[in-house]
Amino acid sequence: MALGVKAFPFTFVVHLLGIAGVVLVLVWCIHFRGGLAWESSDKSLIFNIHPVLMLIGLIIIGGEAIVSYKSVLLKKEVKKVIHLTLHAIALILGIVGICAVFKYHNESSIVNLYSLHSWLGIVVIILYGIQWIYGFIIFFYPGGSEGLRADSLPWHVAFGMFVYVLAVANAALGFLEKLTFLENSGLSKFCSEAILVNCLAVITILYGAFVILAVGCQGNEEDDHSYSAI
Amino acid sequence: MALGVKAFPFTFVVHLLGIAGVVLVLVWCIHFRGGLAWESSDKSLIFNIHPVLMLIGLIIIGGEAIVSYKSVLLKKEVKKVIHLTLHAIALILGIVGICAVFKYHNESSIVNLYSLHSWLGIVVIILYGIQWIYGFIIFFYPGGSEGLRADSLPWHVAFGMFVYVLAVANAALGFLEKLTFLENSGLSKFCSEAILVNCLAVITILYGAFVILAVGCQGNEEDDHSYSAI
Ligand code: HEM
Ligand code: HEM
Repeated sequence: MALGVKAFPFTFVVHLLGIAGVVLVLVWCIHFRGGLAWESSDKSLIFNIHPVLMLIGLIIIGGEAIVSYKSVLLKKEVKKVIHLTLHAIALILGIVGICAVFKYHNESSIVNLYSLHSWLGIVVIILYGIQWIYGFIIFFYPGGSEGLRADSLPWHVAFGMFVYVLAVANAALGFLEKLTFLENSGLSKFCSEAILVNCLAVITILYGAFVILAVGCQGNEEDDHSYSAI
Repeated sequence: MALGVKAFPFTFVVHLLGIAGVVLVLVWCIHFRGGLAWESSDKSLIFNIHPVLMLIGLIIIGGEAIVSYKSVLLKKEVKKVIHLTLHAIALILGIVGICAVFKYHNESSIVNLYSLHSWLGIVVIILYGIQWIYGFIIFFYPGGSEGLRADSLPWHVAFGMFVYVLAVANAALGFLEKLTFLENSGLSKFCSEAILVNCLAVITILYGAFVILAVGCQGNEEDDHSYSAI
């Protein structure tokens, strides 16, 4: 059931939406929300690290890692190293981003892990870590047998897409939750900041959709086997 | 890249999670939130119709419609009628559910269409309607040529999954938004109602995940071609 078109053009849309996402999240957190800080008496600056690292790290670098098999025109072995390195960066930035919001909660005496967003967030980062470790062991080092690799690959793809879609949905939940807090504290529902945050969430979802679309389309190998990661 | 296992057992998980979702959303809206009404001086009862119809209609009946090709052991022609009828019911309940929340907003002097949830909600219901009409014309009546049907099918599946995942994510956004409103009005963050709503959202996401998993696994036809909807 692979879609009968090439993935390569869609990966350009992924890059463009990714750039738009990076710009908008920085404009939001720095221009509208006052900037980023790891230590500050203004605790909201500690919070601001969270959306920036989650979006740029887990979502955008993670998405580039997923499409790298389709967007990069190099040998399979090189693509594999790009794929696992980008995912490692995404994971580390994601972990630091989650530490930032725990630090903000603790220093502002807000309870931890009460919301749907936080529950799913923990699930996402744990599953992302498991997926990375399993992939590394089976496909990279020490590497499983031919048969195990071939059997694992469709599940690696399916589970990877599941975790990624969950991460994108959870980012959308985060944007909605933060904006709802701000609106409850008096921010107008149709001011430019509110529109910006909603547009950023829409761009995040479109980014995720094009990442998944690229996965479903054909790679660049002559033999048209999209998943030659084995 | 289809997963090398049968979809049929997963469709049971879909049915069970669906029943759990129906029970929990009714317990929430009737027991905790005071019940459902189309006309009432207590406007929140009008709102309550919205989650009930969106979840039971668009998500659960819509999900059953998607897995019906895998869960029902009947002839292709019969499955097709079940598929399109369940989707029609899902769409109609979804439209009525959206009318309910507009009615609630108008009678409570709350502005319309300010949130990410509401923007995505409008997109979801429009795309769902377009998908239904296109599918009806091409695959049912009057029906496209063999070639057009074969070309359309992978896109029908891909676009259908996209719209469905967006609907599930949007339902999660709705649960989070409503619970955030309630918590801002004094509901405790760890009371039984808050836990119930978060668990309901988690069940909704798991339901959607098993629907998509069933789509990715093999059907029951002897020839193992999962998509014989053509
Ligand atoms: C997929 C990426 C994301 C993950 C995995 C994630 C994970 C988490 C986790 C685990 C917490 C709980 C911290 C605690 O309880 O102390 C949290 C809190 C929070 N996050 Fe995210 N986050 C993500 C993206 C975002 C984005 C893009 C925003 C946008 C502003 C955001 C907004 C928030 C807010 C407002 C909180 C505090 C309220 C709460 O605990 O729900 N998150 N996040
Ligand atoms: C996929 C299913 C759903 C769709 C397509 C959808 C669609 C919509 C739309 C279009 C609106 C805007 C109404 C207006 O502006 O007057 C809305 C509002 C709302 N919905 Fe949903 N909804 C869905 C599921 C849910 C669920 C399960 C809940 C859970 C409680 C929910 C909670 C809300 C709330 C609190 C509002 C009012 C605030 C707002 O406009 O965002 N929705 N919904």
